Amino acid sequence: MGIGNRASVGAVNERRRVLCDWGSSRLRAFLDFEGVVLDRRDGPGINRLGADSPAAALTAVLAAWRSGYSLDVFLCGMAGSRNGLAEVPYVRAPAKMEVWRQGRLCVRVEDLGAIIAPGIQAENFRDVPDVMRGEETQIFGALTLERQLATGNHLFVLPGTHSKWVLVRDGAVARLQTHLTGELFDLLCRYSSLVRVGDDPATDEGGFEAGLRAAVRGGLAASFFATRTAQLIEGRTAGWARAFLSGLLIGAEIGGVLDESTFRSEPITLIGDPGLTAFYLRALAARHVSAQALDGERCVLAGLRVLADADRSF
Amino acid sequence: MGIGNRASVGAVNERRRVLCDWGSSRLRAFLDFEGVVLDRRDGPGINRLGADSPAAALTAVLAAWRSGYSLDVFLCGMAGSRNGLAEVPYVRAPAKMEVWRQGRLCVRVEDLGAIIAPGIQAENFRDVPDVMRGEETQIFGALTLERQLATGNHLFVLPGTHSKWVLVRDGAVARLQTHLTGELFDLLCRYSSLVRVGDDPATDEGGFEAGLRAAVRGGLAASFFATRTAQLIEGRTAGWARAFLSGLLIGAEIGGVLDESTFRSEPITLIGDPGLTAFYLRALAARHVSAQALDGERCVLAGLRVLADADRSF
Repeated sequence: MGIGNRASVGAVNERRRVLCDWGSSRLRAFLDFEGVVLDRRDGPGINRLGADSPAAALTAVLAAWRSGYSLDVFLCGMAGSRNGLAEVPYVRAPAKMEVWRQGRLCVRVEDLGAIIAPGIQAENFRDVPDVMRGEETQIFGALTLERQLATGNHLFVLPGTHSKWVLVRDGAVARLQTHLTGELFDLLCRYSSLVRVGDDPATDEGGFEAGLRAAVRGGLAASFFATRTAQLIEGRTAGWARAFLSGLLIGAEIGGVLDESTFRSEPITLIGDPGLTAFYLRALAARHVSAQALDGERCVLAGLRVLADADRSF
Repeated sequence: MGIGNRASVGAVNERRRVLCDWGSSRLRAFLDFEGVVLDRRDGPGINRLGADSPAAALTAVLAAWRSGYSLDVFLCGMAGSRNGLAEVPYVRAPAKMEVWRQGRLCVRVEDLGAIIAPGIQAENFRDVPDVMRGEETQIFGALTLERQLATGNHLFVLPGTHSKWVLVRDGAVARLQTHLTGELFDLLCRYSSLVRVGDDPATDEGGFEAGLRAAVRGGLAASFFATRTAQLIEGRTAGWARAFLSGLLIGAEIGGVLDESTFRSEPITLIGDPGLTAFYLRALAARHVSAQALDGERCVLAGLRVLADADRSF
């Protein structure tokens, strides 16, 4: 129990670090040691903090991992937004990994050193400014996991509340287009007159494929109401209707980019929850487009380690 | 005060009738005497009755007009839906006025004789079944008010929560397409992340025209997010954002029909609230399409009188 032991405990503690993916709807924190996740905790998203400050919410979630030694926390996502821990200015495209991580912001939260990744601002496929916070970390993680993605042109698709399509050229984020797909699906299911409440169920009964077919016709505005009439006139279930809406929205998102942009022939990599990317793979396959899918959590951890390793040389 | 007087009061009472436009969100009742509106009352829509039955809601609104004599009430809209006074089956297109009014249903509500107009079911411009309840009454009203509309092909546009585009051929409803425009606008303004809450105001600051221009590019799914980024990056106000969304949705609705359907060269008649049809006139003008606008209330009264006059010969 001499000085040596205390020093080695200190060294171990110094090599422990926390990696946080902190989005609008939830915080996912990972206790990382030499590239191995020792423990994980979940907490509220930036938009769901209630009366708590972001700093208070963060220290509460990480309480069990704090040991009196300074602990570094590496964060991406809405943690760096106006309502987050501290606002981190967007890095402008074209942005390679090195430029991106130079844009990080370091702040002190009690005994925690918080290093927050910037988001990226880029023009979309129509030359209109667009932004992301968090998805860039997953993409840079993917580039370190799959080295062949770091050269040439690649199209990344990150489905979610705000689905992002990101064009990466030789490792640099070049273009970025956001689709409201997930949020719109949620709003329409919860608040609209399109999905009948009450009658069942979970099964989609071919609704997803029917939605994809409707999307090929274009004109989202004209297709929504078919969700309602199919239940009213053709006796479709609420499960079918939800799946139809999902197919319609995902199909319109994919069709919009592939029909319109000049990047339709780039290899496509999906990053996200496997349950969600599976729907996108089905929708792409219906248009005879192939893609690979990477697990979102694996990518965000890899991206946060890229950020953390930069700070080894502080 | 002899028998003669009593008889003439009775005759006057028999010629009084109530005309009701009863939609999802409100009931508008008019006391009509020989084509003149003597009085009007508003009440709750079919979807806003709370614990009241439709019959109880109707008798409460009409209480002041009931005099012990039988009073006939002519209704259109959601009054004839499954949740209304009584379900009236849809009349199938092609449907002329005479076929439509033959589809009416007569029910007794206490001392009231309620005559409910049917809705119409027709295929939309993509050969998918679609339905309306109430708008057909406005259209048939317009056909009696403007005789030139009763011959040849005409495209009617009835903006609202569920905007209807209706092709009428020689006085017969032939096609019908519903757009979710109004409902979607309301959902996006109230629940989405697209329109920033709190900062002002009423002025649109060019947002509507910007939305129309974005709609011309197509791809509604890809354009929604620009509402948010314009506030975040370009400092646009919430007033601009609401107007942009309005222009985007109305522009997409109009573009969808004009670009896609084979009926783009028919004369267009807008029917609705003048404040709302004005936006559609601006959106059509931006595409160099002219149209006439008729007042919705005037049309629905004319249509309900067509229905009522049929029952004179009962």
